[in-house]
Amino acid sequence: MGLWRLANWKYSPQQTVQLLDQLLELGVTTFDLADIYGDYRCEELFGEALKLKPELRDKMEIVSKCGIKLVSDQNTYALNHYDSGAAHVTAAAESSLAKMNIEQLDLLLLHRPDPLMDADELAAALDRLVNEGKVRAVGVSNFLPHQFELLQSRLSRPLVVNQIEVSLLHSAPLFDGQLDYCQRERVISMAWSPFAGGDLFVGSGEASLRVQACMEELAQELDMEPQQLALAWLLKHPAKMVPVLGSGRLARLRSGIAALERELPREAWFRLLRAARGRDVD
Amino acid sequence: MGLWRLANWKYSPQQTVQLLDQLLELGVTTFDLADIYGDYRCEELFGEALKLKPELRDKMEIVSKCGIKLVSDQNTYALNHYDSGAAHVTAAAESSLAKMNIEQLDLLLLHRPDPLMDADELAAALDRLVNEGKVRAVGVSNFLPHQFELLQSRLSRPLVVNQIEVSLLHSAPLFDGQLDYCQRERVISMAWSPFAGGDLFVGSGEASLRVQACMEELAQELDMEPQQLALAWLLKHPAKMVPVLGSGRLARLRSGIAALERELPREAWFRLLRAARGRDVD
Amino acid sequence: MGLWRLANWKYSPQQTVQLLDQLLELGVTTFDLADIYGDYRCEELFGEALKLKPELRDKMEIVSKCGIKLVSDQNTYALNHYDSGAAHVTAAAESSLAKMNIEQLDLLLLHRPDPLMDADELAAALDRLVNEGKVRAVGVSNFLPHQFELLQSRLSRPLVVNQIEVSLLHSAPLFDGQLDYCQRERVISMAWSPFAGGDLFVGSGEASLRVQACMEELAQELDMEPQQLALAWLLKHPAKMVPVLGSGRLARLRSGIAALERELPREAWFRLLRAARGRDVD
Repeated sequence: MGLWRLANWKYSPQQTVQLLDQLLELGVTTFDLADIYGDYRCEELFGEALKLKPELRDKMEIVSKCGIKLVSDQNTYALNHYDSGAAHVTAAAESSLAKMNIEQLDLLLLHRPDPLMDADELAAALDRLVNEGKVRAVGVSNFLPHQFELLQSRLSRPLVVNQIEVSLLHSAPLFDGQLDYCQRERVISMAWSPFAGGDLFVGSGEASLRVQACMEELAQELDMEPQQLALAWLLKHPAKMVPVLGSGRLARLRSGIAALERELPREAWFRLLRAARGRDVD
Repeated sequence: MGLWRLANWKYSPQQTVQLLDQLLELGVTTFDLADIYGDYRCEELFGEALKLKPELRDKMEIVSKCGIKLVSDQNTYALNHYDSGAAHVTAAAESSLAKMNIEQLDLLLLHRPDPLMDADELAAALDRLVNEGKVRAVGVSNFLPHQFELLQSRLSRPLVVNQIEVSLLHSAPLFDGQLDYCQRERVISMAWSPFAGGDLFVGSGEASLRVQACMEELAQELDMEPQQLALAWLLKHPAKMVPVLGSGRLARLRSGIAALERELPREAWFRLLRAARGRDVD
Repeated sequence: MGLWRLANWKYSPQQTVQLLDQLLELGVTTFDLADIYGDYRCEELFGEALKLKPELRDKMEIVSKCGIKLVSDQNTYALNHYDSGAAHVTAAAESSLAKMNIEQLDLLLLHRPDPLMDADELAAALDRLVNEGKVRAVGVSNFLPHQFELLQSRLSRPLVVNQIEVSLLHSAPLFDGQLDYCQRERVISMAWSPFAGGDLFVGSGEASLRVQACMEELAQELDMEPQQLALAWLLKHPAKMVPVLGSGRLARLRSGIAALERELPREAWFRLLRAARGRDVD
């Protein structure tokens, strides 16, 4: 469950607790945050809910990310940029703990590959955060294989996750080596924007329209909703991606979870791929 | 020798035996097939010839491929797609043996990289086919290095071949890492479509015309035929590619084999490359 | 210090000695040459200066390159091409020694990745040159990671350098894996054309103009000259690139060397990157 829109929902802490309760009941236990989500406010909102009902913490895995410096009222940055330096990463992780009122992050991800990444320095900082118990495991987001290998080469523990953008409308990672690398190295891949920000269902681009038409056919044939088809399409991939869902509506999430039960037939998978790319396989 | 056009030649089994006899005499001993060639009929035609003269089998290396599901009267597929699952690959290999009346394939290739390739499952299926004696060795076709590495990482034996498209008009594999990977890992590369489907000699695209003009000059200077130049260009590459020739005409093949004897001078090689790419090296 | 323009400067041997003296005094001790520089004449001009004052040799590291065959009055090549064969590379290295009047090259680089590179043959030739004492260390130039890995796989010693084109106007190597590979494998990267051939300061392309405007701002804010900004931008990268400067003007070099003392703030680095690419980071 992705919480990057938590600040938009304007929930009271009580309402957030209620949502978290319902999600945990549905079996959704992983919560995906980042320091910058909601203009740096989501972690705090999440933390206020946890303060109200601290026993929820132990039923969850909490993921956060750092390494982006976003222009905001909260700071004086002149432009959006990255910082994978030890000082910033350490401070950001500690700030995440403080804002969420927790002792440990289950997973800390570097949010973007920083062209200035000094792998020795960053790996040492990440190792230290784990050794100090502030972080249970570390990973990355949006890293290409060569960036992953560079950081891994200096780290004394495995990077366990790469969270990347994958969907029917963003299928390049299935072909360019990103998911092959995850499969080979047994790195967990999390898929962000698994519905392409909604374009899969309501977009008006050519690819969107083709996918929508194909989904309409398959919805009939297989008795599955479009959202289920989109998720089942991701879940059939052998890299065993974990989609990051970002809806606050329970109905949507319930239907998404139902998708976990349904395997897409191979032909249906390739029909969706053909619709997305506008061409047959070679 | 590629037999993907065998069904087009409308040979009787006797005529096919005659062709095979002549090829073996020329020293051509490797025969390249695939389950799907000739709308799934080539393997059977080849097998009928072998039935007439079974002693030919031991003088040959027989290569076949599987993993593509092609729309055809022979099946009910809704679209062309790939299947690298254990069930399909195993059944396809066994069907190849049955159609060709042979006990063992010398080499089985996965025909295309399948975005749904579960490397653990496929590697186990390939290992099993080898262990059962149905296949002597395994390889791939059209795999990029990262796809090759993924499958290799799960296989208990080396993938011995990658069969890729390479020619003067398709020279990208010389620069993008495909052939460097083969050279480094000592994987045999087979070059399909070494004459770019004939475009090298009769194509009317700009690159084709430039290559034809250059070949005309070199034919004079070096006393070699265009087809020999095209093959000698491939054969000079240190990855030691094995070109897959697909002509049924003996004269063409004889001239091709003669190319094996002639080494192209380095300058001539670069003149052809310049003609193909329309620019000097950097 | 790059000496590819040495022949253009029309210096007498005495004047060259004077330049070398001044450079050494400034702390510039590495001199970058290649067999082909100045239409095959730079090495000889450099050698004439060394003959006048042989004691300079021991204060320097001398780099040369080979592997390009350039059309020139000095030879009969029909076109520019590459030759990484043992015979050419060995002869070229020996010729470099003879022309420069030295016993040993500190570093010999293969100038360009040759599509016909036979890694076994080339590695054996390079190893032999080192074993015979003619070359102290070997490296490459303009090699992509897969080309580097191929050659390295056959060599009994590390390739210590990859000299590649990097500048604010040629920043792809920061993102496509070239510099990540160098950082990971601890290969020294030398950056040629660090000022994009001057386009950084006087170019009229869109990217050049954007960078010039940004440099003007930063020059004010940080009290640094444009040339210093360009170098400090390169030097901040964790791959610790060594820029190859090619100016014969001492003033320029002095200002360049001053850049080594000034670290660019992270925000300024990203402002220059944004100007060069015309967009924010993701």
